[in-house]
Amino acid sequence: MSHRFKGERTLMRVFIGESDKYQGRPLSEVMVERLRDRGVAGATVLRGVAGFGASSRVHGDRLLRLSPDLPLIVEVVETEEAIQAVLPDLDEMIGGGLITLERAGVIMHRPWDVRLSQRELHRIEGLQAED
Amino acid sequence: MSHRFKGERTLMRVFIGESDKYQGRPLSEVMVERLRDRGVAGATVLRGVAGFGASSRVHGDRLLRLSPDLPLIVEVVETEEAIQAVLPDLDEMIGGGLITLERAGVIMHRPWDVRLSQRELHRIEGLQAED
Amino acid sequence: MSHRFKGERTLMRVFIGESDKYQGRPLSEVMVERLRDRGVAGATVLRGVAGFGASSRVHGDRLLRLSPDLPLIVEVVETEEAIQAVLPDLDEMIGGGLITLERAGVIMHRPWDVRLSQRELHRIEGLQAED
Repeated sequence: MSHRFKGERTLMRVFIGESDKYQGRPLSEVMVERLRDRGVAGATVLRGVAGFGASSRVHGDRLLRLSPDLPLIVEVVETEEAIQAVLPDLDEMIGGGLITLERAGVIMHRPWDVRLSQRELHRIEGLQAED
Repeated sequence: MSHRFKGERTLMRVFIGESDKYQGRPLSEVMVERLRDRGVAGATVLRGVAGFGASSRVHGDRLLRLSPDLPLIVEVVETEEAIQAVLPDLDEMIGGGLITLERAGVIMHRPWDVRLSQRELHRIEGLQAED
Repeated sequence: MSHRFKGERTLMRVFIGESDKYQGRPLSEVMVERLRDRGVAGATVLRGVAGFGASSRVHGDRLLRLSPDLPLIVEVVETEEAIQAVLPDLDEMIGGGLITLERAGVIMHRPWDVRLSQRELHRIEGLQAED
């Protein structure tokens, strides 16, 4: 069983390329570390199996599936405030690319046996407890 | 060629971890079976290549990419009613995790050569036939 | 550093199966080529690791994870006009399947050192320059 909370959050999705670098390191890796360091609730990196255009590099006429540069999507579900707070970091890292922002209803579950820490209290801010 | 229908549906996305279990079995597997048993139109499980936080377990300071617990997203596009009907099942299974709900316009194609069964009629309920 | 633009776009997601064919070729491959030929800004193909129902074929009672037909999602972020312009192509290709359309706020980055070509000017149409 778990605590159940309900409310609204923002879904951010950052479209980059697998070969994108930031200061010599893989951009997706630096981005996930930065998001975690900034206290963002979670992040998920999805790798596409094919695609084109979703990267900071200009891919010309070749499909990405023909090159090693597969598309990556970094996803975060957070409060609008938390998203706005990390955007300057992401702006600085992304040479070219696309970020989308969508509103999403959320249902969040937190284990009963985990005492809600300060960080957890921050997570559920603005959500409505349901049990 | 195909029948074409148009309307509104709900996109549900469930963020869990690959190592999450339900009664000793992989949670994603149990969830997909349950969704199918409940007559949900379809489900897609995406596996992230890296991430943190999107799981019932507390991951501490290590990135998931360093651990075997990669993030999973289980996606369903269905009527609001069908989503609400399966939520209690999902609530029961999920020890900790996140569900997002978004409204999405849909265009649904159904093969001409498949006679619309009762189940198919249920699928297209509330959608507008376009040809 | 990069140019930063902000505005609204449409997120299109096409749910098909990995074994779906169009004129003897993998549907996802034909679809990505067509999207690129039509001048769409970018496309990303995600492959699910499990699922059911998200395909033109009738999968009966077996989960896709037991079969080689894994679900694919083809994603495009573009102007509403560009999406509407490619929909007839996609309709023709898809024997059965699902397309979802969502509105999304976007932040687009374009490298400073790339002179904005006609194609780039088209990309940023309707977006607001921010620096």
